[in-house]
Amino acid sequence: MIEPKVLKGFRDSLPSQEIVRQNLISKIQNIFRSFGFVPIDTPCLEYSEVLLGKGGGETDKQMFRFQDNGNRDVALRFDLTVPLARFVSANYAQLKFPFKRYHIGKVWRGEKPQKGRYREFLQCDFDIIGADNSQSDFEILLLIHTCLKSMNIGSFKVLVSHRGLLNSYLNINGIHGKLDEVLRAIDKLNKIGLENVISILRDEGLSDSDIEAINTFISLPKDDFGKTLNLLSDILGQEPEEIIRLRELYSMMIECGIQDDFVLDTSITRGLDYYTGIVYETLLEKMPQIGSICSGGRYNNLTGLYHRDCLPGVGSCIGLDRLIAALEETGSEIVRNSRYADILILKSPSFTQNPAATVLREAGLMVDCYCGDKGAGVQYAYAEANNIPYVVSNYENGLFTVKEIATRNVYENLSLEELVDKVK
Amino acid sequence: MIEPKVLKGFRDSLPSQEIVRQNLISKIQNIFRSFGFVPIDTPCLEYSEVLLGKGGGETDKQMFRFQDNGNRDVALRFDLTVPLARFVSANYAQLKFPFKRYHIGKVWRGEKPQKGRYREFLQCDFDIIGADNSQSDFEILLLIHTCLKSMNIGSFKVLVSHRGLLNSYLNINGIHGKLDEVLRAIDKLNKIGLENVISILRDEGLSDSDIEAINTFISLPKDDFGKTLNLLSDILGQEPEEIIRLRELYSMMIECGIQDDFVLDTSITRGLDYYTGIVYETLLEKMPQIGSICSGGRYNNLTGLYHRDCLPGVGSCIGLDRLIAALEETGSEIVRNSRYADILILKSPSFTQNPAATVLREAGLMVDCYCGDKGAGVQYAYAEANNIPYVVSNYENGLFTVKEIATRNVYENLSLEELVDKVK
Repeated sequence: MIEPKVLKGFRDSLPSQEIVRQNLISKIQNIFRSFGFVPIDTPCLEYSEVLLGKGGGETDKQMFRFQDNGNRDVALRFDLTVPLARFVSANYAQLKFPFKRYHIGKVWRGEKPQKGRYREFLQCDFDIIGADNSQSDFEILLLIHTCLKSMNIGSFKVLVSHRGLLNSYLNINGIHGKLDEVLRAIDKLNKIGLENVISILRDEGLSDSDIEAINTFISLPKDDFGKTLNLLSDILGQEPEEIIRLRELYSMMIECGIQDDFVLDTSITRGLDYYTGIVYETLLEKMPQIGSICSGGRYNNLTGLYHRDCLPGVGSCIGLDRLIAALEETGSEIVRNSRYADILILKSPSFTQNPAATVLREAGLMVDCYCGDKGAGVQYAYAEANNIPYVVSNYENGLFTVKEIATRNVYENLSLEELVDKVK
Repeated sequence: MIEPKVLKGFRDSLPSQEIVRQNLISKIQNIFRSFGFVPIDTPCLEYSEVLLGKGGGETDKQMFRFQDNGNRDVALRFDLTVPLARFVSANYAQLKFPFKRYHIGKVWRGEKPQKGRYREFLQCDFDIIGADNSQSDFEILLLIHTCLKSMNIGSFKVLVSHRGLLNSYLNINGIHGKLDEVLRAIDKLNKIGLENVISILRDEGLSDSDIEAINTFISLPKDDFGKTLNLLSDILGQEPEEIIRLRELYSMMIECGIQDDFVLDTSITRGLDYYTGIVYETLLEKMPQIGSICSGGRYNNLTGLYHRDCLPGVGSCIGLDRLIAALEETGSEIVRNSRYADILILKSPSFTQNPAATVLREAGLMVDCYCGDKGAGVQYAYAEANNIPYVVSNYENGLFTVKEIATRNVYENLSLEELVDKVK
């Protein structure tokens, strides 16, 4: 016999988990579509050259890369951003810009497996390509807000900043060079705390006064988006383009009445060099330890590696695994509803299952018919194990006899309407 | 610059294609769930040993197989059946049987690419594991029937047979051995015609009288399931278990009033040795050339390679690409509705887009806001190219001014209700 094992860092998804994941994906997809975002798909396997791009990053070493049977150097994609850049470049003539796409798909990274980290996992990206203005920035922020609001996940804050703010601020304070190092150090603030960030900056050779200035900047009050904006405007002593952009975004938030869920947080930098405009993270107020549920930002060169046009974009990525963990904590309806079916129809010599099932399905219920060869006891246990709350034990003259598993109550001679009401 | 090319046999899915595919998947998933079938997921990458199983088939040579960075011999899955067997064996204790699962996922085969054949494609499998009786057989048949009925795809026939019929028939006629060869020859009937099947049988060394007997068997009249069943019962001169099973299935069809869409077709064999009970294919009456949209059968040993229990099963596979091709032919609603959104809100200095969009989204519409920097002409072209049928050019005091793209008609001062009515 062959041992039925999976590779280290890979995993099966059991029905109780996969039902939740599919429910969540379906909900998110509907919201994406309601915003005019459309799905695309790209191959999981691509030329290594295409996926590596400029290369040199940590991800290169983590790629599942091999020679295929035709001796092509190929690899499994490690994110959905590089394939998006390749896709937009390859299909440029067939797309209309601004192009709003979402993509939910698996990616592979040969990282050292650890709790919550897998070598195969699902990403969920959404981006707007080919626009650089406040409307496109705002649509991504509004989409994040709408997704999270729809999930009854409790209070959350979208922490927003703009890469240009720190640039302008450092310039004004005469701190030149080391921008990337400063960005990356600040990005660690939530993980390692202020003391450690300061010690990194000191190791990078920044002076005490520079560090003090940076500390002032990232410690600006965050309680009111508008006030922080005015404070920044005062500090920068002018209205640079990043302040103008943030003011436009703030007034759009007010138009939609959602400004209280946004924080202008100057300590948000999103480590990657990649971003050039707004950047954002999303924290749940009661579960900050879960980390950012949804992060992203604006970048000004998506396609430069593959196409003569360097299209700008803005986008985000929902961490589905983190989101599911959070939904489990809050006992959300999406997670609780992992029932295999609404109702089980028993196998019994006294009636036939399929006509009863058809009637109930046509009324919109999820209906399982027990199709094994065991007796009633096993059949009830099957319903219980599969989170099926009701069991039909008889169907005659259009009337159902039903048992509710949780209470053991039996209801006799229910009409279709009565049964549907009870189950829904 | 790097050429943004995809590998031979691989493909991008553009939004107009992917919207259709996602709509179809969503529809099918809802039907699966309404039958108590639950989703699972398994890794795309597995140990080669696990995927190869007994090995030796054509698929072995077609596998994308390589050494990963930890020198493990791994491969991309080439179907969803082997992973199901591994999954059921690995998670045996956590599953309740009969276990009804569906799985929609990509598989990879290094076949020679040709029209309609790709090296990466989506499979859609549904099976019942752990039962061998007419109820489980029938549920798969009813599920196929329900899926196809829901799609307004025109008339179709589910062609059903049972592997045991041919066995019993050959036995009675004293034809022993060569069963697999006869099965595989008959399986080619629709593709190569009767003459060629006969010539294969002759090459296999069957006598003229044997061939004549086989010809009689596969040419039995097919116009009425019940009559063919009686005919077979007469020919076999007894009621072997396969006749009993088919009689039970036939009476279940009658209970559900769907018997006219089923044909007892003794020429259906489904070439693979694998099957042991009923087998079936599904043909569209107006498009038989597309081939079977949904095929499968009963097998009596799913898990024997990985587990001490040899669980029986019955299942099927929907050919999504073929189904989409058929839906395109019939001009089905599922295919026609590839609109990116229901409505586009123009960018205009006279009103703000986001509050208007929010109101329409809350009313259930898919609403895109133009977020580029071009003028009205380009914005209308964007709507047209993205199959968006309506454009909002003004929103004031809760009233919308709307242009219908197809007719160029303009409607002024529509209330929310009026606009929703028009669009839906």
